[in-house]
Amino acid sequence: MAYRSRLAPIARRVSTPGLLRAALASNSGPAVLRCVSNTPMRRFQDSAPRRGNFTTDSYPEIKRDPRFSQITAEHVAYFRDLLGKDSALVDGVTANVSSDDMEPYNGDWMRKYRGHCKLVLKPASTGEVSKILKYCNDNMLAVVPQGGNTGLVGGSVPVFDEIVISTSRMNQIRSFDEVSGVLVVDAGVVLEIADQFLAEKGYLFPLDLGAKGSCHIGGNVATNAGGLRLLRYGSLHGNVLGLQAVLPNGTIVDDLCTLRKNNTGYDLKQLFIGGEGTIGMITAVSIQCPQRGKAVNVAFLGADSFEKIQLAFREAKSQLSEILSAFELMDSYSQDMVHRVRQNKRPLDSEHPFYCLIETTGSNSEHDAEKLEKFLEDVMSKDIIANGVLAQDETQIKSLWSQREGITECVGHFGGTYKYDVSIPLKDLYRLVDDTRERIEAAGLKGDTEEFPVVEVVGYGHMGDCNLHLNVAVRRYDKRVEEVLEPFVYEWIGKINGSISAEHGIGIAKKKYLGFSRNDTMIDLMKQVKKLYDPNGIMNPYKYI
Amino acid sequence: MAYRSRLAPIARRVSTPGLLRAALASNSGPAVLRCVSNTPMRRFQDSAPRRGNFTTDSYPEIKRDPRFSQITAEHVAYFRDLLGKDSALVDGVTANVSSDDMEPYNGDWMRKYRGHCKLVLKPASTGEVSKILKYCNDNMLAVVPQGGNTGLVGGSVPVFDEIVISTSRMNQIRSFDEVSGVLVVDAGVVLEIADQFLAEKGYLFPLDLGAKGSCHIGGNVATNAGGLRLLRYGSLHGNVLGLQAVLPNGTIVDDLCTLRKNNTGYDLKQLFIGGEGTIGMITAVSIQCPQRGKAVNVAFLGADSFEKIQLAFREAKSQLSEILSAFELMDSYSQDMVHRVRQNKRPLDSEHPFYCLIETTGSNSEHDAEKLEKFLEDVMSKDIIANGVLAQDETQIKSLWSQREGITECVGHFGGTYKYDVSIPLKDLYRLVDDTRERIEAAGLKGDTEEFPVVEVVGYGHMGDCNLHLNVAVRRYDKRVEEVLEPFVYEWIGKINGSISAEHGIGIAKKKYLGFSRNDTMIDLMKQVKKLYDPNGIMNPYKYI
Ligand SMILES: Cc1cc2nc3c(=O)[nH]c(=O)nc-3n(C[C@H](O)[C@H](O)[C@H](O)COP(=O)(O)OP(=O)(O)OC[C@H]3O[C@@H](n4cnc5c(N)ncnc54)[C@H](O)[C@@H]3O)c2cc1C
Ligand SMILES: Cc1cc2nc3c(=O)[nH]c(=O)nc-3n(C[C@H](O)[C@H](O)[C@H](O)COP(=O)(O)OP(=O)(O)OC[C@H]3O[C@@H](n4cnc5c(N)ncnc54)[C@H](O)[C@@H]3O)c2cc1C
Repeated sequence: MAYRSRLAPIARRVSTPGLLRAALASNSGPAVLRCVSNTPMRRFQDSAPRRGNFTTDSYPEIKRDPRFSQITAEHVAYFRDLLGKDSALVDGVTANVSSDDMEPYNGDWMRKYRGHCKLVLKPASTGEVSKILKYCNDNMLAVVPQGGNTGLVGGSVPVFDEIVISTSRMNQIRSFDEVSGVLVVDAGVVLEIADQFLAEKGYLFPLDLGAKGSCHIGGNVATNAGGLRLLRYGSLHGNVLGLQAVLPNGTIVDDLCTLRKNNTGYDLKQLFIGGEGTIGMITAVSIQCPQRGKAVNVAFLGADSFEKIQLAFREAKSQLSEILSAFELMDSYSQDMVHRVRQNKRPLDSEHPFYCLIETTGSNSEHDAEKLEKFLEDVMSKDIIANGVLAQDETQIKSLWSQREGITECVGHFGGTYKYDVSIPLKDLYRLVDDTRERIEAAGLKGDTEEFPVVEVVGYGHMGDCNLHLNVAVRRYDKRVEEVLEPFVYEWIGKINGSISAEHGIGIAKKKYLGFSRNDTMIDLMKQVKKLYDPNGIMNPYKYI
Repeated sequence: MAYRSRLAPIARRVSTPGLLRAALASNSGPAVLRCVSNTPMRRFQDSAPRRGNFTTDSYPEIKRDPRFSQITAEHVAYFRDLLGKDSALVDGVTANVSSDDMEPYNGDWMRKYRGHCKLVLKPASTGEVSKILKYCNDNMLAVVPQGGNTGLVGGSVPVFDEIVISTSRMNQIRSFDEVSGVLVVDAGVVLEIADQFLAEKGYLFPLDLGAKGSCHIGGNVATNAGGLRLLRYGSLHGNVLGLQAVLPNGTIVDDLCTLRKNNTGYDLKQLFIGGEGTIGMITAVSIQCPQRGKAVNVAFLGADSFEKIQLAFREAKSQLSEILSAFELMDSYSQDMVHRVRQNKRPLDSEHPFYCLIETTGSNSEHDAEKLEKFLEDVMSKDIIANGVLAQDETQIKSLWSQREGITECVGHFGGTYKYDVSIPLKDLYRLVDDTRERIEAAGLKGDTEEFPVVEVVGYGHMGDCNLHLNVAVRRYDKRVEEVLEPFVYEWIGKINGSISAEHGIGIAKKKYLGFSRNDTMIDLMKQVKKLYDPNGIMNPYKYI
């Protein structure tokens, strides 16, 4: 068969050489714990030496809201008394906390946003959150809910001296029902930990993303995170069955329903999904989890144009259908970046302008192998795909995924990233990257040496959901780059009715561009909701809406 | 193989006899247009002679809100002028419309609720809806949005003289994207018509229910309908990508997004999904549609206890996994009822206390057949399933489905039905039916002759979603029956933290029992939302919350 010879690299690379089919079939057996990385995520503790600018410097137009109180020793005493133990606070108000200790809460993952936080509270229960918020609301103290602090729009860190309320101590798995697959967790449970727990039960968390080793489920829900398998398992708006949240006035919204269906009134929990901590703090989540597929296959393919990748996607949808669990796009620039930073061997022995990673997940490894084999045969014999490899074991699966999941981190390696996470109709998806690269080059901002701020313009993303990540890797954040990029990118998106934020949210980064995706009526209606729940505006101020 | 002999009835019944595998494999070919019935739904026009009581008689405690105006000739003149043509109104105010013409809008599907409506408006566009609502709001005229009027909780018909705003003239399919599978329709498009349209494109509407021949997509979204395949395709909260709606003050909420991902602010559309016309009128919907499976298989199985049906469900989830598209439960009482009303041949040649209908949908008929075959072999050899048949062609698929879909109608055949549509943890699911039957019998209300109000107590439902339909078939609605049933059923549900309404909603039927599924805080928060959007309370009054 034609594709066999073309996929020959597989045979060269695998530990147990063999034909495609045999290799695929060997993939059976117990649930494969695919995507759990062994290395912990980069955390701020490790990167203290390189700090970003203060947000107040990059956004001088944002002024501290004078209605908010300054934090006093009396406030701190109240919180210390409430939380009971010293480890539940990071107190830079009355104690002499080093700025290194405060940095993990003040600086964001991209080192792009940085606040002046002086007090971090780590409640251990919904009741404590309720008392904290009520006190803050009564005393006009502004707060920022914080989960794993992996958010990419500056939403998770303060701008001025807002109090950070971290979910890190609310980290219990509350219950799991092995018949219905419904999991109930505290907001501070790390996504990867929940998924590992589920793996042992033969289930899967219906969300997976590169930051899984650090992000909290509360943060995922607050950002309505999309991730790598939305294509297959759908969005959190459909999968979250219930939640517990606390409103700024201390009211506990107890909607921790574990039923798949419950049509008893307005579905208010939906407002907290993607609410980015602006109307309340999520303290627990219940979510329906699918069964873990017994067979997982991953292929990494190269194609010679974006048109061909689109064709491959159509074929995958049609032929792999119910077993398709991911279809990820990567351009050559993104892969060059990974290679440059990690100095690793590339998956393919040839280079192509575009790559895609295809994952299938199903209950029968032979059936899946047959479908995938037929699909690969088809796309290779029709010259849609130029070259490809297929993972033969779990290690290879991980290694192929890391070519995709590692992009975010590698792109950021040089100093920083301008990140755009947008939804665009499929046919236009990549054009934005080309247009942006052209503009950056025309402005003379991109080059190989230190004087050029821009290292590269790369595109990748969740193609199955028409979700592109346009990343501009920079050596430093630079106003000139920003001016070339914005509002250009947003206008581009606005013109084709795309979304300026597919999954990362608004935070501070996109607040002023919301109008490119939402009309005035919608924005007014959103403001009504904000006002209804948070009349004093203490929840995550200066952001979102 | 053991099960072959036990499934022998299949071979006897099929037109082209043959072994199971062969028959299954023959199911391949183009997308199967399974569930589209040829006979139109029963409509009110056909059943005019039998009318229910006025809701005002059954619920004497509900008083007309004196803030609402009486409809005058002047109001009618405004609407006539606005809508332009006579056929856009059913005018019982200034014209002499027969009560037969008004009945389809006044009486509900169950003949349980009946209003005193004198004016029906049929706008043709969102703009017209906006003008109507603004005028009504300014003039304190109460309204009831109405789609296909198939709702089962009395939400779709007026109580007093509320104006019915029907979506029947807003029935255009606006667009369909063959790459992304995103469909945009007017609110008044009949579900079955949309699904037929999609079938031609190889796609499927991600919702299917017995009333598909009559219900409107706007009504489906307004009730957050669940239906037969939620198990596979998930809820409307996940599948609806956008909508257009009009608020009582005439504001057009234009959120007709067609992107799979769009994290730009609070997801306000979610409030309209399941809002039952109490905060605004939905005028268009955009929804993501999955590809239509090329292979569909349906099996109808009998089991000797509810425990065994549960075991079968577990096995189906595990073995059929990604191809399982429905798992429906039916008790023997429900099947006796269908048999009694339709006088049809039963699918099995033996009788059992419980039956289930299993549907698989996939992209490869041989793979699916193999999985199903193995599953059937397993459950029959382990004595989980006692007997079963497997559809061999489309006609048989339809006929098996009609054993399940026909229940609602057959149960209503004798005069009326007390309907409870509840979510209950799986293990307790059927206990409610037994307990209810026991109570009804103990009260001496059930019997074979006319003096007994109750014909039978039956249980069926979407087992895959833990969603039970408890139906009490009656010869007439009777206070004594009601008193035995309520609050008993709701208390029962409340005790096990179930939901008093899994999918049908609240309407008027469950308004006063909401407290069994929602705490006071939640109800207060819902009232806030109602007040925010509909401060005059003109939208679907006396209902919901
Ligand atoms: C390497 C990498 C890959 C990523 N990949 C993806 C991806 O594929 N898809 C995707 O959608 N996102 C992705 N992200 C971004 C994504 O938003 C986050 O990783 C994640 O969802 C945020 O969770 P967190 O716990 O870190 O939240 P944080 O960053 O701590 O907070 C995010 C926002 O939510 C609010 N918040 C946090 N916790 C709560 C709470 N309990 N209650 C109320 N509000 C709260 C915060 O105030 C903030 O506004 C990625 C990030 C990284 C670093
Ligand atoms: C035989 C049968 C089987 C059924 N099976 C199921 C099932 O499996 N699953 C399930 O969930 N339901 C089922 N139902 C009930 C279900 O709620 C409805 O069939 C359907 O979703 C309602 O649509 P409709 O257009 O008939 O709405 P209607 O009955 O006209 O209205 C229902 C409610 O929505 C409101 N509404 C209608 N249109 C709009 C609009 N455009 N904007 C705002 N509000 C609006 C009305 O005011 C009312 O409160 C069944 C009903 C029947 C008769």
